[in-house]
Amino acid sequence: MKEILVVGSAALDSVKTPHGKVNEALGGSATYFSVSASFFTKVRLVAVVGNDFPRRHVDFLKKRKIDLRGLERAEGKTFRWKGSYEGDMNTAETLKVCLNVFENFHPKIPDYYRKTRYVFLGNIDPPLQLEVLKQVKKPYLVACDTMNLWISSKPQALKKTLKHVDMLVINDAETKQLSGESNLLKAARKLLKLGPRTLVVKRGEYGSMLFTAGSVFSAPSYPLESVVDPTGAGDTFAGGMMGYLAKTDDTSEANIRRAIIYGTVMASFAVGGFSLNGMKNLKRKEIRKRFLELKKLTEFTSAP
Amino acid sequence: MKEILVVGSAALDSVKTPHGKVNEALGGSATYFSVSASFFTKVRLVAVVGNDFPRRHVDFLKKRKIDLRGLERAEGKTFRWKGSYEGDMNTAETLKVCLNVFENFHPKIPDYYRKTRYVFLGNIDPPLQLEVLKQVKKPYLVACDTMNLWISSKPQALKKTLKHVDMLVINDAETKQLSGESNLLKAARKLLKLGPRTLVVKRGEYGSMLFTAGSVFSAPSYPLESVVDPTGAGDTFAGGMMGYLAKTDDTSEANIRRAIIYGTVMASFAVGGFSLNGMKNLKRKEIRKRFLELKKLTEFTSAP
Repeated sequence: MKEILVVGSAALDSVKTPHGKVNEALGGSATYFSVSASFFTKVRLVAVVGNDFPRRHVDFLKKRKIDLRGLERAEGKTFRWKGSYEGDMNTAETLKVCLNVFENFHPKIPDYYRKTRYVFLGNIDPPLQLEVLKQVKKPYLVACDTMNLWISSKPQALKKTLKHVDMLVINDAETKQLSGESNLLKAARKLLKLGPRTLVVKRGEYGSMLFTAGSVFSAPSYPLESVVDPTGAGDTFAGGMMGYLAKTDDTSEANIRRAIIYGTVMASFAVGGFSLNGMKNLKRKEIRKRFLELKKLTEFTSAP
Repeated sequence: MKEILVVGSAALDSVKTPHGKVNEALGGSATYFSVSASFFTKVRLVAVVGNDFPRRHVDFLKKRKIDLRGLERAEGKTFRWKGSYEGDMNTAETLKVCLNVFENFHPKIPDYYRKTRYVFLGNIDPPLQLEVLKQVKKPYLVACDTMNLWISSKPQALKKTLKHVDMLVINDAETKQLSGESNLLKAARKLLKLGPRTLVVKRGEYGSMLFTAGSVFSAPSYPLESVVDPTGAGDTFAGGMMGYLAKTDDTSEANIRRAIIYGTVMASFAVGGFSLNGMKNLKRKEIRKRFLELKKLTEFTSAP
């Protein structure tokens, strides 16, 4: 079992969906990722919060045995996001963003984190992602997320970061935007020339796809009768996937496929509740059950 | 090996896509379905064309050994459709529809067709679908397609037809519209109470899903670098699926899953060319190859 280092945001989210709402609940890419990965391995979190960050959120992360020595507490307020989902809930409408202490965030990787074998660069400014990579020592696997904002505003910085990334984990719209190709397969082939050997494309309710130089894998989502809050689904997916990879310390394609299914399972639990509540009382047994259900869901045999 | 009876439209399609255009090419639900199914079994086609229907289209269908004794030739012009696709090509923009002889179509099932074991009701007016069912004698499997127009304009007639249908084959938007549910799983459960024991939901580039009372199956689409013309993809899918079911005469769930994969394969060939060109020179060997590729594309194992 190996550790994971994750760098990203910690936030207070106010979210409204057709199922209800929450106010200043725990959010942020690094938070969702960490909690999800914590079901598989030890997680080292690097993020920043303000001095208003509630004690109960810290306690929750500690309870998940997440190493918080990299959680910086800065003067000022914590990053806040307010959003709402309607209809099919496939996209969030952002109502308000206050970056606060996140605006001047420069990730400082504690000495005792620098040799972490698995590194996940959450969706932050690409030059900051590169700063992180300069502070770590020869990680075995670097995975990275990004978003439309950076693709349009800092394409060169992002491409510079990608040269040092093994696995890119983004959604389908970002895949098309970053490659300039509207066809996903063409887009994937282009992105695999930018640095990453592995591309994982998140497609929300349509599942995900894995692309490498020589193969494609298509994974479904876990069918749910009710999605309460899709916030953080992508980071939870990445956390489950990376968590399983680090736990098994095996980056063969067969194992990445399994890892993607574990990511899918974790996301399915996360969207079943607001904030991180869907993972709060989750048991290993329940995770394994949905993994096997996804196996049944996709299985077919050649003609007898 | 059992035969299939298909009732639907035969049309002359004028289509424009980013890859080019065709004028008055062979189209129609029954046509796409028949040609696709003809790779698996004998197909009996019931449709209507005008006296302007080109000889070369008839010859092509004959070459595929499709039984055309049910192809009615009426006074007047053949059904014409003009449409275009742009961008991601997920939806067609209809530029012109001339129903012509299709407007007064009343399917007449020839005597020697009445005992066909597998029946596919293509997307036509629901009362006409019921007329077909009144003319056939205890089919073993009745599958049925429909569209948004009938769901909104003739919901009662459609529901009456569905009472006699074993397998409903529609797209995701239709599934949601017909059920009034925005969640696909909830929608599926509702539709399975209307008559069909089996629901197959077509999701375009996202693949398809199979729902029964006790199980769900999720199939991907076949990844393509280029989609030339998506017209008829759904009917081609249904043709491949039903063709395989009739060929094997096995409606167990394991076989329906295989059949869905064959449908997926046929659709992937069809969208690779305009009109039916993508299936024109297709070999059984190529079909089998993509079936096995889809198997590889979806496979993952439990932890060793």
